Amino acid sequence: MKIYETKTAPNPRRVRMFLAEKGIDMEYVQVDIQKGENLSAEMRAKNPLGKIPILELDDGTCIAETDAICTYFEALHPEPSLMGSTALEKGTIAMWQRQVELALMLQVGMCFQHTTGYFKDRMVPVPEYGKEAGINASKYLNILERRLELNPFIAGDSFSIADITALCAIDFARVVNIRIKDEQKNLLRWYDSVNNRASAKA
Amino acid sequence: MKIYETKTAPNPRRVRMFLAEKGIDMEYVQVDIQKGENLSAEMRAKNPLGKIPILELDDGTCIAETDAICTYFEALHPEPSLMGSTALEKGTIAMWQRQVELALMLQVGMCFQHTTGYFKDRMVPVPEYGKEAGINASKYLNILERRLELNPFIAGDSFSIADITALCAIDFARVVNIRIKDEQKNLLRWYDSVNNRASAKA
Repeated sequence: MKIYETKTAPNPRRVRMFLAEKGIDMEYVQVDIQKGENLSAEMRAKNPLGKIPILELDDGTCIAETDAICTYFEALHPEPSLMGSTALEKGTIAMWQRQVELALMLQVGMCFQHTTGYFKDRMVPVPEYGKEAGINASKYLNILERRLELNPFIAGDSFSIADITALCAIDFARVVNIRIKDEQKNLLRWYDSVNNRASAKA
Repeated sequence: MKIYETKTAPNPRRVRMFLAEKGIDMEYVQVDIQKGENLSAEMRAKNPLGKIPILELDDGTCIAETDAICTYFEALHPEPSLMGSTALEKGTIAMWQRQVELALMLQVGMCFQHTTGYFKDRMVPVPEYGKEAGINASKYLNILERRLELNPFIAGDSFSIADITALCAIDFARVVNIRIKDEQKNLLRWYDSVNNRASAKA
C-alpha cells in the first residue's frame, strides 16, 4: 500500500504523525498540489474531490480523507489507541477531533486559501471571508486554552488524534500569522508536550 | 440521557435518523437556535462552541457534534452497522461521510448562513462566499450522481451514515434553492430509496 500526499501540507502531516504513533511504515508518493497534479484524471479516479492525502491499497482500492485513513488504521491496529476504546472515549475524542477540525484547522485553511490566493486557478477567493475565518481560528484557541487548563490533553487524560490535528493546525497557522499567545500558558504547555513527541517529526 | 436539539435543523435530523435506524429511543429537549438559546452560559458549559445537537448522559457528561454522537451509539449498539464492521468498510464509509459533510452539507450551510443573514446577530455574513458555497454544493451533486451510477448507496452496497447525511443535506438545500436535477437519474433513484425508509420521518 501507499499514500499519495504533499509533504508540506498540513493534512498529510496528520496522517504521517498518526502512523508514526502506531509504528506503521508507509510508502509515500509526492503529489505537487500547487501545480495541480492532484487534479489530473488519474488522481480524480482515486479521489473524485481531487484532494490528498489518499491511501491506495495493493488491490487499487483508495480511501481519501485524513480522518478516514486514520479510521482504517485504527481498526487494523487498535493499539496504541488514538480514537478511543470505550464508547464514551470514542464519542469524546470524536467530538474534540471534529471541533478542532472545523473550528480551527478548516478556518486556518480557509483563511489561507481565501486571503493568499494560493489556489486562485481553481477556486474563487473571497478575502473578506478568509479574514473572518482567521478571526474564528484565533477565537477557538481561547476555547482550547480553557479546555487545557483542566485537562492535560484536548480530549481528556490521554493523547489522541485530536492533539495531532490541533498541533498540525497550529503549526500551519503560522502561514497566516496566527500563533499561540504568550498569555495562553496552558496551550503553550500542551504544545511543548505534543511537539516533543517523536511522531511530531514524521 | 437526552439530546438538546432543534427539530427543524439538519444536523439534529441526522442524529434522529441514525437513532431510528438503530431502534434507540431518546428524550429530546428543544432549543431555539434562532433566538440564540444555544449561546447561553448553561448551554456553552455543555458545548463550548454553542452548537446543537448535544447528547447529555445521566451523569451530566456531554458529547456534542453529530458525527461524535453517532460514533458513541455505533460503539454501544453495533447492529445494524451504519459506520462499517471491517477496517475497509469503516474507512470507506468514513471517507464518503466526510466528503458528503464537507463538500455538500457544510457548503449548503455556508450558503444559507452567508446569503440569508439568518445568524447575522452572531457572525459576519459574506454573501459572495455564500454564493460560491452554493455552487460548490451543486457541483458535488454531480460527483454523487456518478457514484450512484455504479453503487446502490453512497458508500457502496449497503445503507450507511453517509446516506443519512446526504439525505438531510439535500432536503435542507431546498432553503437555498438547490435541488437534484431531473437528469440526475441515479441520485433521484437513490433519493426515493432512502427517503422511503421509516427513519427518514424521525
